[in-house]
Amino acid sequence: MSSSHLGIPKGTRDFGPETMAKRRHIFGHIQAVFEKFAFQSLETPSMENLSVLSGKYGQEGDQLLYKILDSGDYLNNTTSEDYFEGYSQLLPKIASKGLRYDLTVPFARYVVMNQQEIIFPFKRYQIQPVWRADKPQKSRYREFFQCDADVIGTDSLLCEAEIVAIINEVFHGLGVENFTIQINHRKLLNGISEVIGAPGKQADLAVSLDKLSKIGSKKVLDELSEKGFQDQQLAKLQPLLEWSGRWEELKQPLQKYIDSSDDGNKGLADLEEICDLVSKLGLQNPNLIVNPCLARGLAYYTGTIFEVIIDKSGIGSVCGGGRYDDLTGIFGMPGVSGVGISFGVDRIYDVMEHLQLFPDHQLVFCQVLLIALDQPSSDHALGLLSRLRSQEISCELYPDRAKLKKPLSYANKKGIPLVVLLGSDEIKTGKLSVKHMITGKQEQLTEEQLLKLVVQST
Amino acid sequence: MSSSHLGIPKGTRDFGPETMAKRRHIFGHIQAVFEKFAFQSLETPSMENLSVLSGKYGQEGDQLLYKILDSGDYLNNTTSEDYFEGYSQLLPKIASKGLRYDLTVPFARYVVMNQQEIIFPFKRYQIQPVWRADKPQKSRYREFFQCDADVIGTDSLLCEAEIVAIINEVFHGLGVENFTIQINHRKLLNGISEVIGAPGKQADLAVSLDKLSKIGSKKVLDELSEKGFQDQQLAKLQPLLEWSGRWEELKQPLQKYIDSSDDGNKGLADLEEICDLVSKLGLQNPNLIVNPCLARGLAYYTGTIFEVIIDKSGIGSVCGGGRYDDLTGIFGMPGVSGVGISFGVDRIYDVMEHLQLFPDHQLVFCQVLLIALDQPSSDHALGLLSRLRSQEISCELYPDRAKLKKPLSYANKKGIPLVVLLGSDEIKTGKLSVKHMITGKQEQLTEEQLLKLVVQST
Repeated sequence: MSSSHLGIPKGTRDFGPETMAKRRHIFGHIQAVFEKFAFQSLETPSMENLSVLSGKYGQEGDQLLYKILDSGDYLNNTTSEDYFEGYSQLLPKIASKGLRYDLTVPFARYVVMNQQEIIFPFKRYQIQPVWRADKPQKSRYREFFQCDADVIGTDSLLCEAEIVAIINEVFHGLGVENFTIQINHRKLLNGISEVIGAPGKQADLAVSLDKLSKIGSKKVLDELSEKGFQDQQLAKLQPLLEWSGRWEELKQPLQKYIDSSDDGNKGLADLEEICDLVSKLGLQNPNLIVNPCLARGLAYYTGTIFEVIIDKSGIGSVCGGGRYDDLTGIFGMPGVSGVGISFGVDRIYDVMEHLQLFPDHQLVFCQVLLIALDQPSSDHALGLLSRLRSQEISCELYPDRAKLKKPLSYANKKGIPLVVLLGSDEIKTGKLSVKHMITGKQEQLTEEQLLKLVVQST
Repeated sequence: MSSSHLGIPKGTRDFGPETMAKRRHIFGHIQAVFEKFAFQSLETPSMENLSVLSGKYGQEGDQLLYKILDSGDYLNNTTSEDYFEGYSQLLPKIASKGLRYDLTVPFARYVVMNQQEIIFPFKRYQIQPVWRADKPQKSRYREFFQCDADVIGTDSLLCEAEIVAIINEVFHGLGVENFTIQINHRKLLNGISEVIGAPGKQADLAVSLDKLSKIGSKKVLDELSEKGFQDQQLAKLQPLLEWSGRWEELKQPLQKYIDSSDDGNKGLADLEEICDLVSKLGLQNPNLIVNPCLARGLAYYTGTIFEVIIDKSGIGSVCGGGRYDDLTGIFGMPGVSGVGISFGVDRIYDVMEHLQLFPDHQLVFCQVLLIALDQPSSDHALGLLSRLRSQEISCELYPDRAKLKKPLSYANKKGIPLVVLLGSDEIKTGKLSVKHMITGKQEQLTEEQLLKLVVQST
């Protein structure tokens, strides 16, 4: 195979050293926040049985699942009739496993399988790749990571308040300051559909409202009209499309609007309690906004819903989640309430790259490069290398004997800040020639002085 | 679906919080060592084109590759004749991608595709799962992680010496002291097959020698005899099967044995230089042993080979690797020498579990649990929670209002060392009731004293 034909599957990516350092900066921070909030780590297999995955993501989701061919003679259990029936008939006979589509369904499956051992309320986080046979486009990939945190086994709204605190700490900690945490409640959406005179049509309503930020209010109303919503219903809905703000501002108008709807008032009461808990947590600048039109497509949400957007980034939601009353019900364990969020790391990466928020020092993979100018210096360098490493200093000795130009260019391209030259002079005098690659400055230092310099600059 | 039918694919595993903490202890340490030796992180996609993977792992390997069905109507490009031809004929028409089988071939593919941008010598490490449709058995899984480090683009034996240093630091750092690093050289094996009068038969020889530790010398000789090695050749080979020791002990007998074989002497010269470099690095107790019968199956090794075993563990190799002269040749970039190792994390895990080497403090996921006894205390607890977290202390407030028994049992099962009780008394006096879960001791502390206690115990 010639190198010009080499490639990787569409929608997948290689992550080289620089990208990896930046990605790990994001992952590491999110993970540290999850752990500070006492979430525990879980990992599930990349493959799940198709019986677990199928039917959980709607018809479109089933199409987007990657299926894995059974190993060996996968045609073993098939007949030519199966073949002629077509690909979807043949499928269950040749593939019994698929790649994970999200982290939520595997989490539910894990909870049900391990319900006897799990200590509830169970706070788990999970940072793993998922796969979707989606059409690749900007910021949308076929293999991408999700960073999820969920609490399951309690309906306390403290969990919602803590989620706001987590989101707040994740974004502030990454240096992304211009974010908004939008919050809404599925029961408030039910209330709205009651109030406008379209009770029971909240699902239709939600699907259209979900597009509000993308297509604008006029097109949302047009779409609802096509769905059979009447003019007077839409007239009643219209002012709401503009409402979005702090709880203190929206509380009264929303209470008035929602009037006597039970669901609506339950939603408002929850939102009030959450906002109250958040304020008691004393967060700095949480940018928490109530948006009564926030809908989120996922069918399993039944309570609070969250979405985070970065202002003026042109990128959609970077984090979302909500409360579900019956996630594990699909696997035979009903009535367990939970709430979770998922951070979209690829989009956060794009935003941070755009805003130049990655710290430079993350990109230092090696602090010191040693260059030995002859054989005796090389022997000396080996000992120095081990002594530097025993101080937890990342360093290396240029492995090949070469003119100075090559190792210096290596240090330069690899972003190594300090180069130590070792030759017969250095060994005689006990002073090392240390070159600062950024300034070009060169100085003579003892080994002790070098150690001190490196430790200080980390 | 009822919960009793739930399961995960054979040979895969869920990793719950405790196992994850232990696994991350291993991964984190290996990664830190790789980085101290200035290796840079790389991640490649889970899926590769089958054109990249096929034919790289021998016929058996091709069978063990997991293939992914093309999305949509995968039968689109097939005819019923393809179906009747059988599964291997049909395969290329319905599956173009497969799951990664190891990290070496994707690494070679990455190097070839990015040769213009890569700074050589390129030191990369990669910690990712791989998949093999192997028969599951003890310590062998269908999804498992590999931890690889490779240097490519230099033939300097310093790389080999550094690999010995890395292995040494990884195992000492994990507390695994009774390990042996075995080293050999493919050219020495060539020399041996010359010396015993079977030049050119080194591959046959290597395959049998590879089984020495498993089946013993008698069966190895029987197997070689069946392969057509003559009695006098085996008689010449036999004493070598017992040779294994420090370079200083083996140097003279091996030089005498290998006599005038060019390849053999080249291998010995390399081994001498590596052992010399290792001693100049001044490692503490590297347990480096030359084993002239160490073979390792992989065909692409051409120079040094490594294998690490844990004495008396009953578990095979926990780390292995070697030098290859032409890994990227398969993708059209010939003549680039490299050397690498791979740590078998699952086996290391099993050994450490068996030897009880995991530190207890790794299993503390949460340092403090707050329990609020009434509503005003709960409000107070929220502020305390945030103040503890601002000191990077992992903590949580029990979310539900319950009798004391339930939250205490929660703390106990989750291994939370400190519980803080908040009631009206505590708020009045400004003293917190702090319960040490291990000793059962209870004391009254100010918030400052609590902070100090937690910080000290971390």
